Amino acid sequence: MLSRNEILFIKELHHKKGRSEQLLFVVEGSKSVSELLGSKLGVKKLFSLPKWLAENQKLVQRVEEVHTISEKDLERISQHKTPQEVLALAELPDYKLEQLWFDSAHHDSAHHDSAHHDSAHRGITLMLDGIQDPGNLGTIIRTADWYGVQNIICSPTTADCFQHKVVQACMGSLFRTAIYYTDLKSYLAKHKPYIIGAVLDGQNANEAKFPKDGCLLIGSEGKGISDELLPYINLKVSIPRIGKAESLNAGIATAILLDRLAGR
Amino acid sequence: MLSRNEILFIKELHHKKGRSEQLLFVVEGSKSVSELLGSKLGVKKLFSLPKWLAENQKLVQRVEEVHTISEKDLERISQHKTPQEVLALAELPDYKLEQLWFDSAHHDSAHHDSAHHDSAHRGITLMLDGIQDPGNLGTIIRTADWYGVQNIICSPTTADCFQHKVVQACMGSLFRTAIYYTDLKSYLAKHKPYIIGAVLDGQNANEAKFPKDGCLLIGSEGKGISDELLPYINLKVSIPRIGKAESLNAGIATAILLDRLAGR
Repeated sequence: MLSRNEILFIKELHHKKGRSEQLLFVVEGSKSVSELLGSKLGVKKLFSLPKWLAENQKLVQRVEEVHTISEKDLERISQHKTPQEVLALAELPDYKLEQLWFDSAHHDSAHHDSAHHDSAHRGITLMLDGIQDPGNLGTIIRTADWYGVQNIICSPTTADCFQHKVVQACMGSLFRTAIYYTDLKSYLAKHKPYIIGAVLDGQNANEAKFPKDGCLLIGSEGKGISDELLPYINLKVSIPRIGKAESLNAGIATAILLDRLAGR
Repeated sequence: MLSRNEILFIKELHHKKGRSEQLLFVVEGSKSVSELLGSKLGVKKLFSLPKWLAENQKLVQRVEEVHTISEKDLERISQHKTPQEVLALAELPDYKLEQLWFDSAHHDSAHHDSAHHDSAHRGITLMLDGIQDPGNLGTIIRTADWYGVQNIICSPTTADCFQHKVVQACMGSLFRTAIYYTDLKSYLAKHKPYIIGAVLDGQNANEAKFPKDGCLLIGSEGKGISDELLPYINLKVSIPRIGKAESLNAGIATAILLDRLAGR
């Protein structure tokens, strides 16, 4: 049986404060935990019903601490309405935004002047300005992973990607994608990557010429891209509308534009 | 102040049984209610804080019964965590699936043999097989409206589109889209429309030749398209994957394929 302290410890990880202090986050359910165990992220503890554990002995070998627990205990620590088989505590990845540039261009640290930073920006990076709905954020991370986007840079106003609902909606893509949080204005001012911005009054995305490398910048559902970021956009695009809906969900708009960019 | 009976009556509409009995559904919030009042749907009752009502006098003229209520009363009848200004009871639309064919082709009833039914199928109709997540369904309806899809045919296993979460996620598109529920197998066997099916092992959607008219059939997130419907698919397509995610969210897949179809 789980101790009261153990339960309290896990419950603290349901909040951002607890995650930042312990540098751990919670992953639940067979599908997500299997993807976690197959990823590069560290896994500190795992709590499983006997059945799941018996079927996944090989997968859990790399976990520091494995606990067999009862359904009742799993209910106590789960955030699911109907808890599923297994719950793991994973180490919060410590992605360094500065390394995004050097790593991807294989520069050594002697060469990183600003021009090199920009040329290091290979492929498509996603940039999210204030996506607050956790389900939306999770879907965006999953879609980005589908389209081979490996880096997502988020404004501090974007939802925390290690919270339960995002982890669930990501379906494992969270463990394959580097997600950074930073002040986007300072970042853009310093690095000046090529920015494709999704706006309502931009060029028709059917006619736009997309570059091979660049950042796709998506604004929040309600407010769009922040005014202070608009001057940094190199290519403003809009998804042409045929019917009558006023706007598209931010996740849908991201997906359609990533699909267009992938086609280049 | 609202009577206890009035409150109970509205709360019954939060459930499918209540909606079917009363032929009414609940719409909440300024944005959705404004869209409702601008649509063709009947609006039976409206409950508003004094401020919203004062600002929207013209809009509410067509409502049978308008009540000014307090914030406390609004809280009592709302399904929102933080209730918003206004709540309306709209009449459940009674779309007849049989009319979809005759109306769109302007045939009179003397001519509706099966061949005519098929030719009546103009533009793109969406067909949903077991989309159970209400947020997903709402996003799909909104996206369909963006792309000019006017008819959505759902399996009985698809979520009820008049429940709170779907209404919210639709952002008004629910009031412009005819949504039908029927047994898809019987329907396809009888009408034989051209079916484009989203599957995991189909033709690359980048290379597929899409027709101008037809049904886009989307399966459920977990199970895909039901086995019994597979024989009716004329064109199986898949969205090419570049990265590593195992699948796309059903709403995202729908959006990307509608975007491709819209481009034809």
